[in-house]
Amino acid sequence: MTTAPDAPGVEPDLSVGMVGYAFMGAAHSQAWRTAPRFFDLPLRPRMTAVAGRDEARVKAAAARLGWDSTETSWQSLIERDDIDLVDVCTPGDTHAEIVIAALEAGKHVLCEKPMANTVDEAEAMTRAAEKAALSGVRSMVGFTYRRVPAIALARRLVADGRIGTLHHVRAQYLQDWIVDPEAPLSWRLDKDKAGSGALGDIGAHIIDLAQFITGESISRVSGRLCTIVDERPLPSEHSGLSGKAGTGTGKVTVDDAAMFLAELTGGALGVFEATRFANGRKNAIRIEVNGSRGSLAFDFEDMNLLHFFDGTEDAGTAGFRRIMVTEEQHPYVGAWWPPGHIIGYEHSFIHQAVDLVRDIAAGTDPTPSFADGLQVQRVLAAVETSSDTDSWQEIPT
Amino acid sequence: MTTAPDAPGVEPDLSVGMVGYAFMGAAHSQAWRTAPRFFDLPLRPRMTAVAGRDEARVKAAAARLGWDSTETSWQSLIERDDIDLVDVCTPGDTHAEIVIAALEAGKHVLCEKPMANTVDEAEAMTRAAEKAALSGVRSMVGFTYRRVPAIALARRLVADGRIGTLHHVRAQYLQDWIVDPEAPLSWRLDKDKAGSGALGDIGAHIIDLAQFITGESISRVSGRLCTIVDERPLPSEHSGLSGKAGTGTGKVTVDDAAMFLAELTGGALGVFEATRFANGRKNAIRIEVNGSRGSLAFDFEDMNLLHFFDGTEDAGTAGFRRIMVTEEQHPYVGAWWPPGHIIGYEHSFIHQAVDLVRDIAAGTDPTPSFADGLQVQRVLAAVETSSDTDSWQEIPT
Amino acid sequence: MTTAPDAPGVEPDLSVGMVGYAFMGAAHSQAWRTAPRFFDLPLRPRMTAVAGRDEARVKAAAARLGWDSTETSWQSLIERDDIDLVDVCTPGDTHAEIVIAALEAGKHVLCEKPMANTVDEAEAMTRAAEKAALSGVRSMVGFTYRRVPAIALARRLVADGRIGTLHHVRAQYLQDWIVDPEAPLSWRLDKDKAGSGALGDIGAHIIDLAQFITGESISRVSGRLCTIVDERPLPSEHSGLSGKAGTGTGKVTVDDAAMFLAELTGGALGVFEATRFANGRKNAIRIEVNGSRGSLAFDFEDMNLLHFFDGTEDAGTAGFRRIMVTEEQHPYVGAWWPPGHIIGYEHSFIHQAVDLVRDIAAGTDPTPSFADGLQVQRVLAAVETSSDTDSWQEIPT
Amino acid sequence: MTTAPDAPGVEPDLSVGMVGYAFMGAAHSQAWRTAPRFFDLPLRPRMTAVAGRDEARVKAAAARLGWDSTETSWQSLIERDDIDLVDVCTPGDTHAEIVIAALEAGKHVLCEKPMANTVDEAEAMTRAAEKAALSGVRSMVGFTYRRVPAIALARRLVADGRIGTLHHVRAQYLQDWIVDPEAPLSWRLDKDKAGSGALGDIGAHIIDLAQFITGESISRVSGRLCTIVDERPLPSEHSGLSGKAGTGTGKVTVDDAAMFLAELTGGALGVFEATRFANGRKNAIRIEVNGSRGSLAFDFEDMNLLHFFDGTEDAGTAGFRRIMVTEEQHPYVGAWWPPGHIIGYEHSFIHQAVDLVRDIAAGTDPTPSFADGLQVQRVLAAVETSSDTDSWQEIPT
Repeated sequence: MTTAPDAPGVEPDLSVGMVGYAFMGAAHSQAWRTAPRFFDLPLRPRMTAVAGRDEARVKAAAARLGWDSTETSWQSLIERDDIDLVDVCTPGDTHAEIVIAALEAGKHVLCEKPMANTVDEAEAMTRAAEKAALSGVRSMVGFTYRRVPAIALARRLVADGRIGTLHHVRAQYLQDWIVDPEAPLSWRLDKDKAGSGALGDIGAHIIDLAQFITGESISRVSGRLCTIVDERPLPSEHSGLSGKAGTGTGKVTVDDAAMFLAELTGGALGVFEATRFANGRKNAIRIEVNGSRGSLAFDFEDMNLLHFFDGTEDAGTAGFRRIMVTEEQHPYVGAWWPPGHIIGYEHSFIHQAVDLVRDIAAGTDPTPSFADGLQVQRVLAAVETSSDTDSWQEIPT
Repeated sequence: MTTAPDAPGVEPDLSVGMVGYAFMGAAHSQAWRTAPRFFDLPLRPRMTAVAGRDEARVKAAAARLGWDSTETSWQSLIERDDIDLVDVCTPGDTHAEIVIAALEAGKHVLCEKPMANTVDEAEAMTRAAEKAALSGVRSMVGFTYRRVPAIALARRLVADGRIGTLHHVRAQYLQDWIVDPEAPLSWRLDKDKAGSGALGDIGAHIIDLAQFITGESISRVSGRLCTIVDERPLPSEHSGLSGKAGTGTGKVTVDDAAMFLAELTGGALGVFEATRFANGRKNAIRIEVNGSRGSLAFDFEDMNLLHFFDGTEDAGTAGFRRIMVTEEQHPYVGAWWPPGHIIGYEHSFIHQAVDLVRDIAAGTDPTPSFADGLQVQRVLAAVETSSDTDSWQEIPT
Repeated sequence: MTTAPDAPGVEPDLSVGMVGYAFMGAAHSQAWRTAPRFFDLPLRPRMTAVAGRDEARVKAAAARLGWDSTETSWQSLIERDDIDLVDVCTPGDTHAEIVIAALEAGKHVLCEKPMANTVDEAEAMTRAAEKAALSGVRSMVGFTYRRVPAIALARRLVADGRIGTLHHVRAQYLQDWIVDPEAPLSWRLDKDKAGSGALGDIGAHIIDLAQFITGESISRVSGRLCTIVDERPLPSEHSGLSGKAGTGTGKVTVDDAAMFLAELTGGALGVFEATRFANGRKNAIRIEVNGSRGSLAFDFEDMNLLHFFDGTEDAGTAGFRRIMVTEEQHPYVGAWWPPGHIIGYEHSFIHQAVDLVRDIAAGTDPTPSFADGLQVQRVLAAVETSSDTDSWQEIPT
Repeated sequence: MTTAPDAPGVEPDLSVGMVGYAFMGAAHSQAWRTAPRFFDLPLRPRMTAVAGRDEARVKAAAARLGWDSTETSWQSLIERDDIDLVDVCTPGDTHAEIVIAALEAGKHVLCEKPMANTVDEAEAMTRAAEKAALSGVRSMVGFTYRRVPAIALARRLVADGRIGTLHHVRAQYLQDWIVDPEAPLSWRLDKDKAGSGALGDIGAHIIDLAQFITGESISRVSGRLCTIVDERPLPSEHSGLSGKAGTGTGKVTVDDAAMFLAELTGGALGVFEATRFANGRKNAIRIEVNGSRGSLAFDFEDMNLLHFFDGTEDAGTAGFRRIMVTEEQHPYVGAWWPPGHIIGYEHSFIHQAVDLVRDIAAGTDPTPSFADGLQVQRVLAAVETSSDTDSWQEIPT
């Protein structure tokens, strides 16, 4: 018998401290744990500490999710010398304060999306990130869907000119988890905590994806927000999505659904829609891009597929190709299983961790940057203003 | 041997005169010829005469399409006593004049969509239709897609309450026939003839379908039109879609693509898009409806299918049902083939002829009426004004 | 007004006499009526006479389907001088007698599949056809699915070498119309009339398709037939598929389902299955072909699509292409509608009529020939023998 | 700061020793590591030791996959007192020896499929397992696909009677990884090591799945094996699937493709096919079940979906339901992500670990048992004999 050291001893550690441990915390934990097992990393992530206000709950989370220690405030986490990177998985109203403090303490930061609840906050965070970057501190916003292999392949095909000049983007993020008017309130339906509803929570993703895939930015929008069910039962206890209804009702203060038209910097037209009321659609992130040379289509419910129409092919045999994005030529896929053995939702978090670790080791700035996150925040704000004022709104650059 | 009279002699004739004989003329001819062979009709359509300006061409068309006689002007067709119904298949700029004259001459009218090139024309036509109706003269607008069995089934399910309260409509009509900038000009790209581009030609269909399926009307819109390629080669000769390019170029004076947000009378949100630049999409009429109890989805490229999500089912076995709309319980289908033997594009024209003949015989007003067509025209006009003025526009009722 | 002669007077007539007027008779009638309206034909089909035993019923059928006259026996139809072609749409037990008589009378023959109820009959018919061919009399077996554009495209791609060396064929014909044990008996379940059940009725189609697409023949088989429900209610009256149950029961004397393994002449492996008990599958003719360079897949429930995998493409962008077979480059399609406007079940009958008329005019032998039909019959017989004897059976050549 | 013990201290450990560390070893490692993070387990798996012959390679594997120590022989692994469970991930020719030794040493055993290379071996293993079970030692065969949630749901629906009486099973396992004749030899193509080719490697999975879902056993088979490319380049070095070709060629001694007909104990018909030559199909495990009340269809390339046709529904709205198997009501899914957030290939290995740990803690016998694995082995052997002798073969019970 020979003892195998957990790491072969070559790579230095990257010590991670995570704030928050709910849905996103579970996904991030799985990412930090799994990344070094499938990818060659220049730094070895250590799951050093997790922070949360309730001591009993944070301890239970640490045990379940596999963190070495706990803190009962994010401040004490940031103060620790043995933390290199702060991973922020809390609701949006807390992001600015935590992130700025972490950056000022010289910690690398991974911040869940949406980056902030207001443009002002996002601007302050971006300034802090740019200042910290001067000292080699790195920061990244968690638009994980960029790291779905099919999405990364879509970006590659556009960048390679396979789509030609962009004409159209149509993107939808369709869910149905509150279509039942008796589904209880949660923090995600509270503007003070969540900042925004369907628009900020899921619309942010398709804005980022559309801009990432096309390499263009949204420049003008005309939008409409809507709260379909504006009063709901209070939850029976302090519970999340799956909470049972208790007594009394409360106001929904965010949008249930959002839609907007867009113009992109290169002149293309965009149509966007985000809703939590699309009955039967569970997590349908659908994005279609049409250009002068070809088209792409993606649906997250089949996230291992990318549909590609090559308009330069002979019309007799042209057709949308159903590309199963599980070949070793595809982004990220070589580390996983043989062709046809698909991956799932959490794998894009693993890819995010891999890219961030490599950027930190290489001393390069990760993407999406805080500036990227700020630009998405500006689009969200413009859509909201547009809806309030029945007008088209420009996105400041 | 016994001679079989073409008709058993019971049903009186309904003598049809058609104006125009291009793409739509071919589809309508097939409808008049085929309808009595598969459906029991109270009147037997006669393909009495077809009218066109060029004598040689109209004669050739009559021979090919199976019309008994020809006229070289629509006026002489209307003057004929042996014509009961005038079927108008010409470009939109001619509809008002022909239709009003026909109605005044006491002929029933079937008018291809879009009903007219302006709201004013459509209003005049509607007044003429309403006046003629007092004398038992019937009129119908040719929104044929209503008669696709899957669409008619969608309408039935909504009417039966299977979708519940409507939350969302998203509808797209995607084509790519002019994505090549070298595709030559045709009358469909000329505002004087066609009135409108993608919006009026194909957007009109999805407006009608969305309103038909949901039973609600569009009340407000914010839209954007766009001419992606505004100069094109002139056609080598007076040819249509498949024309070769000749020498010189000309201006495209209609929109290539249109998109708009909408509010419906019941409060639901709508997102609409019509384009001729969606590379790889040939005739993709896609419509999805989400309500409090369920959802429906349709794509014309698979026109014999309707996807239905029943939100009242147990979550463990709920899922979009792929309904193959070829059962005898389904609208129109009983007249055709056994289950699983699909029908095609022209069949909805046949169903349109069947319904119109039955209405004429029964003395009931057909749908979609001219008033329905006028309302679609008003939505189209509102989208155009909205795009010109960067504003939301109300649809007058 | 100018009278337009039904035909411009150039093409000579081809006078058709049809025997039988049920399901197949309706499809053939629609074919003869429609073919000259969309295709340029060197001969103009005339729907001269239809024959059936019951005078009242055949007269009604003639009126509904559009035949000029009637006969109450196939013999009197064949005796008529004004009939050029006999179109045989009766149950299989009558084929041999009618077809041989027609050929001996110098009539061209179109014979519905399966060609005969026994190999002996099929051999006699083939001999008669070969003898008649010496005098310029043409004959064809009605394997219409060959004329579905997607199938014809599949054949073209194989012939062009796009699939390379053939490795696998898997073909299924799945229906469910008698999965209910209370569905009543019909002539299709009676061995004396139908000759065979699922095997001969629908299995014959996939045998023909597999051989047509691959260009290879089945050389050996091991099969199993099965009668799942062997006793059924008698029909209430002399009705067909949609018959109501009456009193009493009767024996099902044909197979309900059949499956067999096959070896093809080139060494490829084949797996075939035909059943009327695949709950939820209405007319699913599914065929998939795998070769060294690529693969093809087809499902009749989406009959306007062909899926093509080009194995020579770069693995990073390779994928099954969903070819919408509605382009003018595709077989038969140029005569129909613009791209994306699909066709239906009866169109392959129209294409069959077109090809047959052109062959007759050109003096060339149509395919599938009676020899082709005989070969399919031999495969059917071998599968039956194999099932009876638990052995592999060779197909004689 | 509070140190969080890796486990809260309640559950006892289950110490695992794994033999082999290639493809399956990586999947099993991920399972042992992840299972306790998402599922509540009565025992906490410890990744105690991994064994392999080459010391340097096994150490590298241990570091990468996260095992605490290494052994250079399976014998020394089994001898260790601190190992509770032996997880066998080696090629099939070694299974019998390792497994029997482990069982005799009182270790629980998880044995990858196919269980053995011969029926004799499988029988010996089963006897050993049954003997060991008397002392509370548990054993399980790694047919992981049973633990795909959609498959487990399929089993549940059949068990609940939703399919009624079974009529048909058709199952295919289609891959294409050696369709290129220049793909080099690997141990999987060597009968001495692998025992069997496509039949044993992937055909075994669909045999197990068909029997698991239906609850019936295969009783008779008629099959055909085939080696399409029987000579291949030798690999350039001792590499696996992705190996480069070196110099010289060697014989392929296993089948490339296999197909067989089957009868099931309840009288249903089965059609099975396994191949590595289905160009464009990467890991297409397709299984369809038809019964008197409904049907099910599954394709592993879309492994989070189950298609269910409920034949008891009204024909007007019946259709295959596309069930997205990501609801908390579905098997295994509650531990993962919200609805619509799919899981991937390795998750069924995690579920397998969960079920095995729970069975060990509960003192119940896991499934699939070695007796189940032996029965699959008997079907494989019968197919092979059938192919060799051109006969139907019974499966002994």
